[in-house]
Amino acid sequence: MSHIKDYVEANKQRFLDELFELLRFPSVSADAKYKDDVLKTADYIAEKLRSAGADNVEVCATAGYPIVYGEKIIDPTKPTVLVYGHYDVQPPEPLELWHTPPFEPTVRDGKIFARGACDDKGQMYMHVKAFELMQETDGLPCNIKFMIEGEEEVGSAHLDTFVKANKERLAADVVLISDTAMISLEHPSLETGLRGLSYVEVEVTGPNRDLHSGVYGGAVANPATILAKMIASLHDENNRITIPGFYDDVVELSAAEREALNKAPFDEEAYKADLEVNALWGEKGYTTIERTGVRPTLEVNGIWGGYIGEGAKTVLPAKAHAKISMRLVPNQHSNTITQLFQKHFEQLAPEGVRVKVTPHHGGEPAVTPTDSVAYKAAERAITEAFGKAPIPTRGGGSIPIVALFEEELGLKTVLMGFGLDSDNLHSPNEKYDIANYYKGIETIPLFHKYFAELSQ
Amino acid sequence: MSHIKDYVEANKQRFLDELFELLRFPSVSADAKYKDDVLKTADYIAEKLRSAGADNVEVCATAGYPIVYGEKIIDPTKPTVLVYGHYDVQPPEPLELWHTPPFEPTVRDGKIFARGACDDKGQMYMHVKAFELMQETDGLPCNIKFMIEGEEEVGSAHLDTFVKANKERLAADVVLISDTAMISLEHPSLETGLRGLSYVEVEVTGPNRDLHSGVYGGAVANPATILAKMIASLHDENNRITIPGFYDDVVELSAAEREALNKAPFDEEAYKADLEVNALWGEKGYTTIERTGVRPTLEVNGIWGGYIGEGAKTVLPAKAHAKISMRLVPNQHSNTITQLFQKHFEQLAPEGVRVKVTPHHGGEPAVTPTDSVAYKAAERAITEAFGKAPIPTRGGGSIPIVALFEEELGLKTVLMGFGLDSDNLHSPNEKYDIANYYKGIETIPLFHKYFAELSQ
Repeated sequence: MSHIKDYVEANKQRFLDELFELLRFPSVSADAKYKDDVLKTADYIAEKLRSAGADNVEVCATAGYPIVYGEKIIDPTKPTVLVYGHYDVQPPEPLELWHTPPFEPTVRDGKIFARGACDDKGQMYMHVKAFELMQETDGLPCNIKFMIEGEEEVGSAHLDTFVKANKERLAADVVLISDTAMISLEHPSLETGLRGLSYVEVEVTGPNRDLHSGVYGGAVANPATILAKMIASLHDENNRITIPGFYDDVVELSAAEREALNKAPFDEEAYKADLEVNALWGEKGYTTIERTGVRPTLEVNGIWGGYIGEGAKTVLPAKAHAKISMRLVPNQHSNTITQLFQKHFEQLAPEGVRVKVTPHHGGEPAVTPTDSVAYKAAERAITEAFGKAPIPTRGGGSIPIVALFEEELGLKTVLMGFGLDSDNLHSPNEKYDIANYYKGIETIPLFHKYFAELSQ
Repeated sequence: MSHIKDYVEANKQRFLDELFELLRFPSVSADAKYKDDVLKTADYIAEKLRSAGADNVEVCATAGYPIVYGEKIIDPTKPTVLVYGHYDVQPPEPLELWHTPPFEPTVRDGKIFARGACDDKGQMYMHVKAFELMQETDGLPCNIKFMIEGEEEVGSAHLDTFVKANKERLAADVVLISDTAMISLEHPSLETGLRGLSYVEVEVTGPNRDLHSGVYGGAVANPATILAKMIASLHDENNRITIPGFYDDVVELSAAEREALNKAPFDEEAYKADLEVNALWGEKGYTTIERTGVRPTLEVNGIWGGYIGEGAKTVLPAKAHAKISMRLVPNQHSNTITQLFQKHFEQLAPEGVRVKVTPHHGGEPAVTPTDSVAYKAAERAITEAFGKAPIPTRGGGSIPIVALFEEELGLKTVLMGFGLDSDNLHSPNEKYDIANYYKGIETIPLFHKYFAELSQ
C-alpha cells in the first residue's frame, strides 16, 4: 500500500491537471453541435493510455462515437480485468444555475466542479492513473484491457455491435466499472445491484392545430389536461404503479435481505435538508433505501405542451408531450415493461385525443453475487484501503450495458464507485471530491492484486 | 348602399395594398425584440388616419406602447361613435407550421394569410377605410373618434390609465369594436356577450435542484407528477370545474334564451372534421354552442417541467409549471375567480412540494342588451348589407376592456365582428377572408347611419 500512496503523493498535481484537461472537453454526446469535442476527447484518452504504457491502443470507429481500446497483457495465464468507462457527458443545461462554467473545472472546498467530474471522467480516469501507477511501481498483477465508450449518456447504441464483433479482443475474467456512488469515505460501500431502465416518450394529440382557448375552450379535449389525467392515474394513493402486470416479475427481498440493506446509515433529516423538501414521498410500506434501490419506479422526466414562453397566451394546445422513465429491479425485463406501459397508456386515452408512445433506450437490472471472486476481491481492496469493510448496497441508477457484458462476454461486473450521492449527477454544479479521486487511484491497484490472488 | 359599394369597388386594390403594408409590420407586443416594429405600426395607423381626414391625430405615449387617437367632429349635437381596435398582434410561433411567412401577407383561395390578418389589423383597418369612404361620399352621419392601442394581446395594461386620464377627449355615445367572429357571410351574426378571463401561472417545486432519477426516483415527490395530479383534479367526471365556489355567481340562461342561442346553425360533423378530432368534449348537459359561449371553462394553455429537449435525460425535475386560464360568464368576477383558484390550488398541494400561483391579467364578462339603440343600429346595418337579420351569439373569447369602457366612460360596446371561427386566431396560418374585409367596409357606414337615425 505504501508504494501506492507514495506514487500518488508524488504525482498528485499532474493527476489533477490531466483530469482538468479531460474535463475541459465539452463531450456532450446528446447534442450534435459538440461532435468535434467528443471526438477530441476520445483522442485524449487514447493518448493518455499510450503514455501510461498500454499496447494496441485504438480509437475504434463505430456508427456513432468511437470506442477507445487499449491493453497490457503481462501473462496470458493471469486473469484479465476489463475496465469499462465512458468519456461522454450529460448536457450541462440549465446553464444559468451553474456557479462556475460547466466545462471550466473549478475547485471549491476540496471538490472539483465540472460536468463529468464524477460521471464519468473523474471516475474513469482513476483507472488510467491506477494503471500507470501499477506499471511504475510493482507491475500489473492481472492483464488489463480498457474499453472506454462515448455514448453512455445517450444509451450506448453502438456498444453491443462492438462487443459482439470483438469477443476475442475483449475476452476477460471480470468487468470493472467506476460510475456509481459509495455512501461516504467514512462508510465505504460496494454496489451489488443496479436498477434497469425503460424510457418512453408520449405524445397526446387533440385538434390538428393550436386553438384560441376562448373560441374553442370547453368544446374539445385539451391534450395538456388529458395528459395530466393520464399521468396522474399511473400511481395509486399508495404510490404503487397502476400499469397491469408491472410488478409480476419483481423478486421481493427476503426479510433478512431487507434487514441487511437497511443497516446502511441513512439520516432522513439530513437527506430532506439537503434537498430542501419538508417530506419524503414514495411507495407505501418501503423505506427510502428500499424505494431507491430495490423497488421499481415510474418518473416523469419532462413534460411540455402549449405556450411556455414569457407572459400569457390563451391557446388550447394541439399537443402535449412527456418523457417518462421506469427503473426496474430483478427480474423485470426492459422490453416487457415498455410494452406493458405502451399498451396501458394507449388504452387510457379517451375519445377526442390520439396517443403515441415512442420507446427510447432501455436496460436490464443486474445483481453481482457477494460470494463471487470478483466481489470478494473488491471487498478486500476496500477493506485495506479504507480500514473497514464495505457495506453492500443496491443502486438506484441503471448501467444497461452490465447485462450486455454478461450476455455477450459471459462476464460479471464489479461496480466499484467512488462517487457520492451529493455529486449532482445530471444536474447543475456536478462535482467530484478530490479526496475520492485520489482514494480511488489508491484502491484500484488493490483490486487487481486481490483478484489475481483469489483467482488462483 | 350603392355609393358605398361603388367606392369600395373603385378603391379595392388600394384598400388591400394598405392592409398588406400594415400586416408586414411584425408588431408583436409580447416580445420586446419587436419594439421598434410596434412603434412604427402606430405611426402607420396615425398617418393613415390623417390621410383619411381625421383631426387631432396623436400617437399618445403611455408607460408601454402608444395609443393612436384621431377624431372628426362634424356636429357636437350628433351622436359620437368611439372606434376601438388594436395594432399589436400575437406572437407568430411556432414558425415551422406556417405555410407562408407570418409577416408576408399572402393570398390563397380568396383569404389573406398573415399574423394579425383578422386579429385585429384586418378588422380594425376596415373602420379606417369606412371613415375615408364616408368622408368621400355622403359625409359622416355621426362624429367619430378612434382609439387604437398596441397592447391588447398582452393585457392592455396601460389602457385604463389612458381612459381615466382622457374621459373628456373620449366622451362618446357608443364603442364600436370589430375583433370577434360572425358565423359566416351566409349566416351573419352579432356578438351579444363575451366571456371574461382569469389567467394564472402555477409553479410546483419539489427538491431544490434537478435530481438524478435513478438515485432519487421513488424517494421524493416529483413536481411534474404532482402538478399532473393537481391539474387532473380540476375537472370532475362530468367536466365540471371542482374549485369550490367557482359556479356561485354564474347566471344560468333561461330555457327560452338557451333555445334562441341553440338556433344558430352548428354542424357538429364539420366542426369535428375541421379540427380532425373524433369526438367533442365538454361540460355534461350543455351543447357545444353553450359550452363555448355561456359556460365558464378552465384550460391549460401551457405546461412544462424537466428535460424537454432532444433524446432522453433521466432527470427528476425540481420544478414544473403551467399556465392556466379560465373563461368567465356573467356574473363571475375575474379577481374573485382568481382568488378562488389560488386558494384551492395552494390547498391541493401535498407535503413534499411547494406551490406558487401568480395571477396574470384578467377581464370581466360582458353582455350588450339586444333592445339597446346600439344593438338595433348594428342589427339594421347588417340586415341591409347582408339581406338577412343577424343571429345574436355569445362569444367564447374575452375582450376585457369592454367592462373598462362601461365603468369609466359609461359606454356600452357593440361587437360587430367580421372574422370567422376558422381564421386560426392565435395559431399558425391566421387568415382573413378578403370578402369579409370588403363586406365590413360596406357595413360599417350603415351602422353610423342607423345609429344617428335611432339616436334622434
